[in-house]
Amino acid sequence: MLECNIDDMNPEIYGYVIEKALEAGALDVFMIPIIMKKNRPGIILSVLCELEKKDALEKLIFMETTTLGIRNYEVNRSALERKVLRIRTKYGVVAMKIGFMGGKILKYAPEFRDCKEIAESFCIPLRKVYEDVQYAMKKYLESM
Amino acid sequence: MLECNIDDMNPEIYGYVIEKALEAGALDVFMIPIIMKKNRPGIILSVLCELEKKDALEKLIFMETTTLGIRNYEVNRSALERKVLRIRTKYGVVAMKIGFMGGKILKYAPEFRDCKEIAESFCIPLRKVYEDVQYAMKKYLESM
Amino acid sequence: MLECNIDDMNPEIYGYVIEKALEAGALDVFMIPIIMKKNRPGIILSVLCELEKKDALEKLIFMETTTLGIRNYEVNRSALERKVLRIRTKYGVVAMKIGFMGGKILKYAPEFRDCKEIAESFCIPLRKVYEDVQYAMKKYLESM
Amino acid sequence: MLECNIDDMNPEIYGYVIEKALEAGALDVFMIPIIMKKNRPGIILSVLCELEKKDALEKLIFMETTTLGIRNYEVNRSALERKVLRIRTKYGVVAMKIGFMGGKILKYAPEFRDCKEIAESFCIPLRKVYEDVQYAMKKYLESM
Amino acid sequence: MLECNIDDMNPEIYGYVIEKALEAGALDVFMIPIIMKKNRPGIILSVLCELEKKDALEKLIFMETTTLGIRNYEVNRSALERKVLRIRTKYGVVAMKIGFMGGKILKYAPEFRDCKEIAESFCIPLRKVYEDVQYAMKKYLESM
Amino acid sequence: MLECNIDDMNPEIYGYVIEKALEAGALDVFMIPIIMKKNRPGIILSVLCELEKKDALEKLIFMETTTLGIRNYEVNRSALERKVLRIRTKYGVVAMKIGFMGGKILKYAPEFRDCKEIAESFCIPLRKVYEDVQYAMKKYLESM
Repeated sequence: MLECNIDDMNPEIYGYVIEKALEAGALDVFMIPIIMKKNRPGIILSVLCELEKKDALEKLIFMETTTLGIRNYEVNRSALERKVLRIRTKYGVVAMKIGFMGGKILKYAPEFRDCKEIAESFCIPLRKVYEDVQYAMKKYLESM
Repeated sequence: MLECNIDDMNPEIYGYVIEKALEAGALDVFMIPIIMKKNRPGIILSVLCELEKKDALEKLIFMETTTLGIRNYEVNRSALERKVLRIRTKYGVVAMKIGFMGGKILKYAPEFRDCKEIAESFCIPLRKVYEDVQYAMKKYLESM
Repeated sequence: MLECNIDDMNPEIYGYVIEKALEAGALDVFMIPIIMKKNRPGIILSVLCELEKKDALEKLIFMETTTLGIRNYEVNRSALERKVLRIRTKYGVVAMKIGFMGGKILKYAPEFRDCKEIAESFCIPLRKVYEDVQYAMKKYLESM
Repeated sequence: MLECNIDDMNPEIYGYVIEKALEAGALDVFMIPIIMKKNRPGIILSVLCELEKKDALEKLIFMETTTLGIRNYEVNRSALERKVLRIRTKYGVVAMKIGFMGGKILKYAPEFRDCKEIAESFCIPLRKVYEDVQYAMKKYLESM
Repeated sequence: MLECNIDDMNPEIYGYVIEKALEAGALDVFMIPIIMKKNRPGIILSVLCELEKKDALEKLIFMETTTLGIRNYEVNRSALERKVLRIRTKYGVVAMKIGFMGGKILKYAPEFRDCKEIAESFCIPLRKVYEDVQYAMKKYLESM
Repeated sequence: MLECNIDDMNPEIYGYVIEKALEAGALDVFMIPIIMKKNRPGIILSVLCELEKKDALEKLIFMETTTLGIRNYEVNRSALERKVLRIRTKYGVVAMKIGFMGGKILKYAPEFRDCKEIAESFCIPLRKVYEDVQYAMKKYLESM
């Protein structure tokens, strides 16, 4: 986990840094709003990555942000076994991210990108697309 | 100003609603993280718009989010006179948003989109593009 | 809408004030984390209520918090027509909050309290109860 | 310390997960509001626990939330020696949590639950109960 | 109430603007962390002032920040009757802010500045100074 | 890194603790707004320090805050090589913090204190001072 506190950068830069870090192989990138000395609203920029990507990502953060120092510490990760299943819905095929525990399906969620595309081409609320896809998935599981 | 408190929606939906509201003519859309009853982290979704867009945007919020109620109140706006000036930099032409007070330039800022494009095509930090463009603008003003 | 900024109160008090304000008839109560002068993390305590409850709720806030001043301004509210429908699920009957637009069902959500009770008595994840109840509701709607 | 970033869960679920995690032996559970990619307001769910509870709590988080991965890292804890003292006040007996340093009382705070009960049965502001209990404690210490 | 959303300013500037606005007669100034479009962490800068200070404070905000527009709306204020009482404590005289309701003392709090000075000159925790001053105040009230 | 969660302290105390911790040798001190159990808005007080300062800073936190426990874990730090350069501007000499990578200047920023002093004595916006100082620095670098 890489972290740096930033209190002197134009916030327009963050969205760009996050994109770049993900392209460079970060597992996750996020921002934590904080309060720093002298009444400054700051941000902790957090980048989670594999150990072998650490140097490249540190360099990217130093290049793209105003920070002069980056903290790092090791974290372990427990992850569910995951699969992507493509299921049929009334709007067409949608990818489902599925999480397994002990070989059994524990949870599933539709791929955001697929749902967004459907919402836009069918002109229906994204919220409703999620609902309908969850429903199709549940029906599919029941039928098995 | 339209506002609604949301504590029961998948947060993946927000980015999409914000895009849709801006396309539908909202002047600004933003989210305020709040704490609601029963230990629920919520969001105030805020949409600023002209009075004549109010009904259309309320409908959009009702369609796209889980909210059952929307607050609205009138606000006045003071705005600086603005112009967009296209200035020459070593990377090419960049749009500058300029704010005037009493007929004089009070502040200016480069257009994010232009800077981002430059950063990507020239492979230099976005932070540095901003700096260079500000510098070019300042030089241009001095030369007048 | 009643609002006051608080930067000198033991935060343990907030949960209690929120409960009391809801009991006293507030429509909604929530907290916005803010940053105040002298590096103080503060809270805007916001209480939405009908005009006729304003005085009683102001008094309650003055009694129960450390604030010396309360702001208020009027807001209008647009609300969907709502009904509560009790539907049958495999766990028993569950209340659904339903929102209508133009006489048609636009959205629905299960009552938190009912789902929580089911999760606890059946020892299944609350997340799964929500899913199953949504599924039962959708099936019910399709069968009509 | 267990941590997971969540950006795709109905926030109504959090209060329930926190309760369950505390019942399952977590030392502390809290939420950090964050900003994730694609303009998503997210939450870091943080669970502090003894090493021997780690597996059970990870399982609980996987069961009850939408997360597919949990980070963990070890932290050390320095704690003040603590005692609970029951003191007499004008409202009856109240538990005080006391922190010692070098054998001396360094700080003390009344038990929230006791104060809340008093506030409700005597119909006085909770804020005032805290004050009065602190006062009784201070008097008691002075009299020793 | 004046409000502007800022997402393109070096956060080091905020502390300075807040100081200036208070010097210029603002009743209160605070910052609300928000999430703006394109994954930008922003700030609502909020300035509460009397109507006759509105123009001067708007000018100050336009001069000192990057914003191009400021919203304003009117709010009413209910305030407790206040007095400052100077009480004797074992550290010397300390100012107490006192809030009255219906002619009776409802709440009181020591002046931060006085307590800070005492903490520094006596080398004791500020937390303890607050406690001791509250205690002295309560004793004084009881003796009346 | 030292961290403690605080949900029962008057927020006026934080600014003071931060000052004290920096005086006592902390490298950085900041606050993270969080949501704790029972609807309590809390703060993680984070103190970054060298290992040899850990005990002194823990003692200070125990003395000055209400916390009964402090977490700590080790973090590594990558830092850019830094220098302070004093450059001439039209307002006088200003310190610039400069960050180097591979022996080359990667970034620079003016010292806040110097800019603030200029803004106040010349009565110009702090924002403008930053701009002018950045401009002077860039010109200086170009002339080399």
